[in-house]
Amino acid sequence: MTSSHTIKARKTLDKIQPYSPGKPIWEVQKELGLDRVIKLASNENPLGPSPKAVAAIQNGLAELNRYPDADASALKKAIANKFQVTPQQVITTNGADELITLISEAFLEAGDEVIVPSPSFSEYDFGAHIMGATVVPVKFKEGFEYDVDALLAAVTEKTKIIYICTPNNPTGTYIPKSDLDKLVEAIDNVLVVIDAAYDHFADAADYTNGVEYINAGQSVVTLETFSKIYGIAGVRVGFGIAPESIIQSILKVKEPFNVNTLAQIAATAAIEDTEHVQTSQETNKAGRKQLYKAFKDLGLTYVESMANFVLVQLGEDGEELYKQLMAKGVIVRHGKIWGLPDYIRVSVGTTEENQFFIDVLKGLLVKQA
Amino acid sequence: MTSSHTIKARKTLDKIQPYSPGKPIWEVQKELGLDRVIKLASNENPLGPSPKAVAAIQNGLAELNRYPDADASALKKAIANKFQVTPQQVITTNGADELITLISEAFLEAGDEVIVPSPSFSEYDFGAHIMGATVVPVKFKEGFEYDVDALLAAVTEKTKIIYICTPNNPTGTYIPKSDLDKLVEAIDNVLVVIDAAYDHFADAADYTNGVEYINAGQSVVTLETFSKIYGIAGVRVGFGIAPESIIQSILKVKEPFNVNTLAQIAATAAIEDTEHVQTSQETNKAGRKQLYKAFKDLGLTYVESMANFVLVQLGEDGEELYKQLMAKGVIVRHGKIWGLPDYIRVSVGTTEENQFFIDVLKGLLVKQA
Repeated sequence: MTSSHTIKARKTLDKIQPYSPGKPIWEVQKELGLDRVIKLASNENPLGPSPKAVAAIQNGLAELNRYPDADASALKKAIANKFQVTPQQVITTNGADELITLISEAFLEAGDEVIVPSPSFSEYDFGAHIMGATVVPVKFKEGFEYDVDALLAAVTEKTKIIYICTPNNPTGTYIPKSDLDKLVEAIDNVLVVIDAAYDHFADAADYTNGVEYINAGQSVVTLETFSKIYGIAGVRVGFGIAPESIIQSILKVKEPFNVNTLAQIAATAAIEDTEHVQTSQETNKAGRKQLYKAFKDLGLTYVESMANFVLVQLGEDGEELYKQLMAKGVIVRHGKIWGLPDYIRVSVGTTEENQFFIDVLKGLLVKQA
Repeated sequence: MTSSHTIKARKTLDKIQPYSPGKPIWEVQKELGLDRVIKLASNENPLGPSPKAVAAIQNGLAELNRYPDADASALKKAIANKFQVTPQQVITTNGADELITLISEAFLEAGDEVIVPSPSFSEYDFGAHIMGATVVPVKFKEGFEYDVDALLAAVTEKTKIIYICTPNNPTGTYIPKSDLDKLVEAIDNVLVVIDAAYDHFADAADYTNGVEYINAGQSVVTLETFSKIYGIAGVRVGFGIAPESIIQSILKVKEPFNVNTLAQIAATAAIEDTEHVQTSQETNKAGRKQLYKAFKDLGLTYVESMANFVLVQLGEDGEELYKQLMAKGVIVRHGKIWGLPDYIRVSVGTTEENQFFIDVLKGLLVKQA
């Protein structure tokens, strides 16, 4: 007989930090007894889901007793069409975070090294630690700009993967195409994973999501998601684009029915919902400007963003202000989880949500002064 | 610069066989140009999804731009309530197959051994191979009965997990409680994973899904799914019940938003849909009898089943008959994937679907004779 306490998890899992998600609206409402709570914490689309996606789901409910299409063939075709690649160069996953885990499982052995920009999305570390690989963090330059020379200097014989999150979460900064060209050109025997989850919001002329490297047969995976601009984070769909041989390797570790039926239906509709995409882009662009102006007026330093969130420096009272914002019904993310305790990351909301946040923040800063 | 072809997947993945799902209805219809196709291949609920689950989904569509509840707190509470355990003893996953992978990631190091009854569900092997563990298959006795002595004899110092699928897929046989007691009592330092995906269909008095071992603090995980009796395979929800320390270890390797919002909503409603569960149980029991009678009349040997499928021996023409059934619009599973080329596994359908299958099979056997 074995007591449950004698069963020990793998040692390498000690390195895994629990993920800290943005608090859900209902939880904050319940805990604090607030009437109005706005969530600007998880970089969700403030306009809601693509209406075409919602309509498509409604037509797909009768057949839920059937397993999903294991190949997600309609969705892969729609993605391939949009990105001008073949369906064989596409893999669909249960959110892009699952794809990060699958890439780790496909390519990482214990002791391998993974280069991760710091600070960035925590799931890269998670995937590495599951496989017993070592995370090699590389800091950004001043202003959170990518430091290609530092990234290249970190490469060793053990390096298997370099993650490039562009636009980067949580900084909003991006890597210019010329720098990415330099990186991809210089490395050898290393997989470059370009996380382009926020690419719809990047309007810089020299931005790239890296798909052109894939068409050239280079060892690049571009990660994309339906959780941001398409507004269907709730159903979970991410995808990867890569040369076919790399996709084949990742498919080996994928569970057959990882992307549920409603997610497949919703994403296939959402990717064609150009109206919703365009409105969302315009709302985000206007919202970023609204936030920048308010931060300037308040004398706060912020990082110019190519994404749907802005990192802003509140100073040594960062954590206290984060908590006070929550108490007033505004959920944002405190920078502590990224080693940036002076900062908060605020998702761009609707004009009205942004204004509510600005007014509450202003009130708190005035009280403090 | 790295060409995609120089990036090699991990060597251990060579052992992974691609999963072969049951063919979807639309695919067979399209390929063969058939008007009527019935699918008795994936052990789905022939009555459709729980109506309460479908209604619940319809009320949850407006908020799909938000990430799911990472804790699945409402669903875990409903499950805990149903099984008389605490929510801390429950983990919810993207189908039960994800849970098998997570258990593997939490506990298996390269070189560890995993005991798997043979033939059984292929995902146990998959999880083991991802982690570089060795699968030790243990055959059933005559009539596909569990052989507890053989299972115990296979245990070595390297054994980390024993899988017990009960009722077993694809045989439909189960392990009597006294045998399971003996197994759990005898082993030391080994996790017993009881896959009870089909437990709603098991009506033998000495059947158990193992939850009583968990309440006693033993190192057992019971796997369950919403894909079978509840009829929501399309949205993907599985769950595990285990002592809290084991759940904590598995949670470490879980991606935060693995169970999508609609799945959480649907499952929380479905678990309370006692009418749908009862009707589904009755339909299945009557359907098994209908199939047994037909097989007897046709002089075919079958395995008595505690699940929602029946394994039946067609002889050396098994593969040919499987193909001819498909050509006539009846999708079943050929036993080749389980090393049983003489057999097919047929899911129990509605009375009418079962009759359609029986009539087609009869026609083929008569033609053959």
